[in-house]
Amino acid sequence: MPTLDETLARIAPPDTAARAAALERQAQLTKPAGALGVLEDVSVQLAGIAGTCPPPAPERPVVAVFAGDHGVLAQGVSPWPAEVTLGMVENFRAGGAAVNVLARACGAEVVVVDVGVAAPVAADDVVWDRNVRRGTADLRTEAAMTRDEALAALQVGIDVATELVARGHDLLLTGDMGIGNTTPAACLVAAFTGADPAAVTGRGTGVDDATLALKTRVVAEAVRRLGAPVADPATDPVATLAAVGGLEHAALAGFVLGGAAAGVPVLLDGFIAGSAALVAHALAPAVTGYLLAGHRSAEFGHLAALSHLGLRPLVDLDLRLGEGSGAALAFPLVRSAALVLSEMATFDSAGVARKEV
Amino acid sequence: MPTLDETLARIAPPDTAARAAALERQAQLTKPAGALGVLEDVSVQLAGIAGTCPPPAPERPVVAVFAGDHGVLAQGVSPWPAEVTLGMVENFRAGGAAVNVLARACGAEVVVVDVGVAAPVAADDVVWDRNVRRGTADLRTEAAMTRDEALAALQVGIDVATELVARGHDLLLTGDMGIGNTTPAACLVAAFTGADPAAVTGRGTGVDDATLALKTRVVAEAVRRLGAPVADPATDPVATLAAVGGLEHAALAGFVLGGAAAGVPVLLDGFIAGSAALVAHALAPAVTGYLLAGHRSAEFGHLAALSHLGLRPLVDLDLRLGEGSGAALAFPLVRSAALVLSEMATFDSAGVARKEV
Repeated sequence: MPTLDETLARIAPPDTAARAAALERQAQLTKPAGALGVLEDVSVQLAGIAGTCPPPAPERPVVAVFAGDHGVLAQGVSPWPAEVTLGMVENFRAGGAAVNVLARACGAEVVVVDVGVAAPVAADDVVWDRNVRRGTADLRTEAAMTRDEALAALQVGIDVATELVARGHDLLLTGDMGIGNTTPAACLVAAFTGADPAAVTGRGTGVDDATLALKTRVVAEAVRRLGAPVADPATDPVATLAAVGGLEHAALAGFVLGGAAAGVPVLLDGFIAGSAALVAHALAPAVTGYLLAGHRSAEFGHLAALSHLGLRPLVDLDLRLGEGSGAALAFPLVRSAALVLSEMATFDSAGVARKEV
Repeated sequence: MPTLDETLARIAPPDTAARAAALERQAQLTKPAGALGVLEDVSVQLAGIAGTCPPPAPERPVVAVFAGDHGVLAQGVSPWPAEVTLGMVENFRAGGAAVNVLARACGAEVVVVDVGVAAPVAADDVVWDRNVRRGTADLRTEAAMTRDEALAALQVGIDVATELVARGHDLLLTGDMGIGNTTPAACLVAAFTGADPAAVTGRGTGVDDATLALKTRVVAEAVRRLGAPVADPATDPVATLAAVGGLEHAALAGFVLGGAAAGVPVLLDGFIAGSAALVAHALAPAVTGYLLAGHRSAEFGHLAALSHLGLRPLVDLDLRLGEGSGAALAFPLVRSAALVLSEMATFDSAGVARKEV
């Protein structure tokens, strides 16, 4: 498996010639210029990633759901008990969670990666044991994990992406599970974008006003301990990740980097994925060329992450579930974008008259 | 085939008991309440339409593309020549247009209905000959069609919907083709919503500033000729349709009514469909219970129509193509909404702990 340094070195911007060819081909297709809107942009991006025009439509998507627990839950930042993380891992294994349903609906496989669940998890073909640590420390009072643990979790993500691409998957979807994980996500967004913690801390899976106020204080304290915002990638993103992140956030950052290094598009889910992508972007700015934003989460702070990354969300339906649900819903849009470029007739081939100028 | 009066009489609001059961079931599924956002609303609506919970997921979608030409094109409201309508009908027949690609991508069939194309069109299994009139008159100077022609085109839509449901299709998607057809659509939206013509007349497939100004004047004059806005359904929607509509708009209104009368959900495409749905709604207000808005068009005026109908668009990607493209892109979201309700585990069945209260 490639190391982090090897992975970062492999991430080059997508192919400009293939992008140009896709733009040129879009102009020949039997429709007014630009009439397919964002779908045209996606098709151009896929051509650049594939290095060819038209790009192959993705047909073997896979959702990797990274699961972890969070010491900060002791502060009372979520009304859900920690054992729900394990309960949901078992639900994923049995195929009964939202992401299972939505992945089946779009033809995607699901793998679950235990990178930081607090309780022991049985491993099988669906649930992979890559546990680095049984839950993070409480980021309000100390670093969530050590630098070595953060690096190990990043490597888990790289390894999983590399393995899935080796198995023939041609598009990677991000997923996550971890009770309490919007708190480290808000910390990462505040740290990497410089946004006010109050502007990027939200209600997660449904906290009341008092809990939201507490959660915002926890995020603000953790970010303050970091010193100044570290939006400058020349500083140390891994240190930030270790201090205020989560194990699944770290693995997701590695997963994003691993996909990009393998030349495969990565379809991000919502807030957790967006926060992890900020870490990946700080380590390798060119990674954004491989990223698609599956949806816009109802969670505060997600838009700040997407704006920082320069990504436009494909689906906007007030989802706030995580798991990879928003990415799975967006997959058919991405596939359709590729098919438009390869299957639509041109004005010449169809013999359709053009606009009068 | 049912007549218009029979069709209107059959449209009853969706089943409230099935809706209530769906709401109750959503609360049992292994996710925070409301975390699937609009998808939950769609699932409840589908349950109401099906009259059972969980509702069956739609598996046999079909796009009906109604095609017509427009006398108002003589005013110079579009830069595209009228023969493109026929050219695109042939492109649909050959399977090379955007709607063909997007329908294949989501597993939908495509039928094309010539309800008002100016040139003769060959009929086959894909392209149906239901021509009522070879293009409308110029709505700037006279009624676009007679009342009898409007009624005949409405009946075409009812018949097509009835036929497609009889063939086993379980979800109807609207499509349209007609060079110049955003001008009658803007007239209908202005007439039925009472909006200022300037606020609902847009660039269609790409007109310049001068053409947009001309188009707005044309719409304003046509609507002024109607007298006061006819937002009150107690007035005569068919007269309005005949005066300022198009043959495909009339057929789409009938198609929407026919689908609702058959108890099947209808997934609307963009601006043309939205304007036609206003006619249907004026004839039978309960029709909105059967309608889903596939996407939000980049065209001015679409939002006015959706607001009047109380519909929230599912996809918002700056599309402005028509043909049914936005509806086809939205179909997987609708199907996924139904699958969530039928396939997700409940907290009890999965043994997952609930939120602490």
